[in-house]
Amino acid sequence: MSRRRLALIFALGCGLAIPPLQADEDSPVEAAIKYRQSAMKLVGANFKPMGAMLKGELPMDQAAFARFGKDLAAIAGIDILRGFPPDSEGADSKAKADIWLNWDDFRQQMEGFQAEAAKLGAVAAGGDPAAIKEQFGATGKTCKGCHDDYKE
Amino acid sequence: MSRRRLALIFALGCGLAIPPLQADEDSPVEAAIKYRQSAMKLVGANFKPMGAMLKGELPMDQAAFARFGKDLAAIAGIDILRGFPPDSEGADSKAKADIWLNWDDFRQQMEGFQAEAAKLGAVAAGGDPAAIKEQFGATGKTCKGCHDDYKE
Repeated sequence: MSRRRLALIFALGCGLAIPPLQADEDSPVEAAIKYRQSAMKLVGANFKPMGAMLKGELPMDQAAFARFGKDLAAIAGIDILRGFPPDSEGADSKAKADIWLNWDDFRQQMEGFQAEAAKLGAVAAGGDPAAIKEQFGATGKTCKGCHDDYKE
Repeated sequence: MSRRRLALIFALGCGLAIPPLQADEDSPVEAAIKYRQSAMKLVGANFKPMGAMLKGELPMDQAAFARFGKDLAAIAGIDILRGFPPDSEGADSKAKADIWLNWDDFRQQMEGFQAEAAKLGAVAAGGDPAAIKEQFGATGKTCKGCHDDYKE
């Protein structure tokens, strides 16, 4: 048996003997809800301290700000829509049914956020305060727009 | 008032009137625990279906596999250690106290995972089955090593 095959079998033994696409005992809907909530948690964990720095609630730390921007862009770049399969409203979710009734609009708004967050990551690395403030505002507008329409 | 300033004020009004670095009503420790659990949830949500495809539990879909690899690498690239501030064990956490007793080793293991996951993302995009299996195994080994030492 090759080393490659042994390594594969080893990795596959690492907790992977569970149904595909589901975490632990979660149903597919529960797994999807946790997926999107995890993504949004990480978005907020980076966007919020950036806002706090711009607002003066936290001292501006350009290196930390750039890192938050980089990580925000990375999270925003994943397949977030994967966390919204049809009818995955669920009891533990603030996602409105309108998401699936207006899927094309929801998708476009999500992609708008993803595009603005990617730009914010680049602008944050650049360090130009005026550009940062403008792009932070543009990104926040996509958050608010989508939450207003599709989040309880 | 400039459009830039208006956009900033608008964005700052979008739910940012909360303590910095904390999500909603969470304490800093609770926020850190949710941050790291969210990151690990997203890691698993990508790594597990890759394993299921390699194992034959899911049909191999090269495009989906590459996307999982890309997203895994993106998540692994964020500042995961930020979710492990000193003494953030907490009731809802499976993180062992050994993390903070052996911080340098924990950090090195985390960085090892991050490096292997980045390689897996690249290899998954390349599409070479043998290289994918090898790198999947190498990445899974870093998951298991760190979980064995530092996760309840």
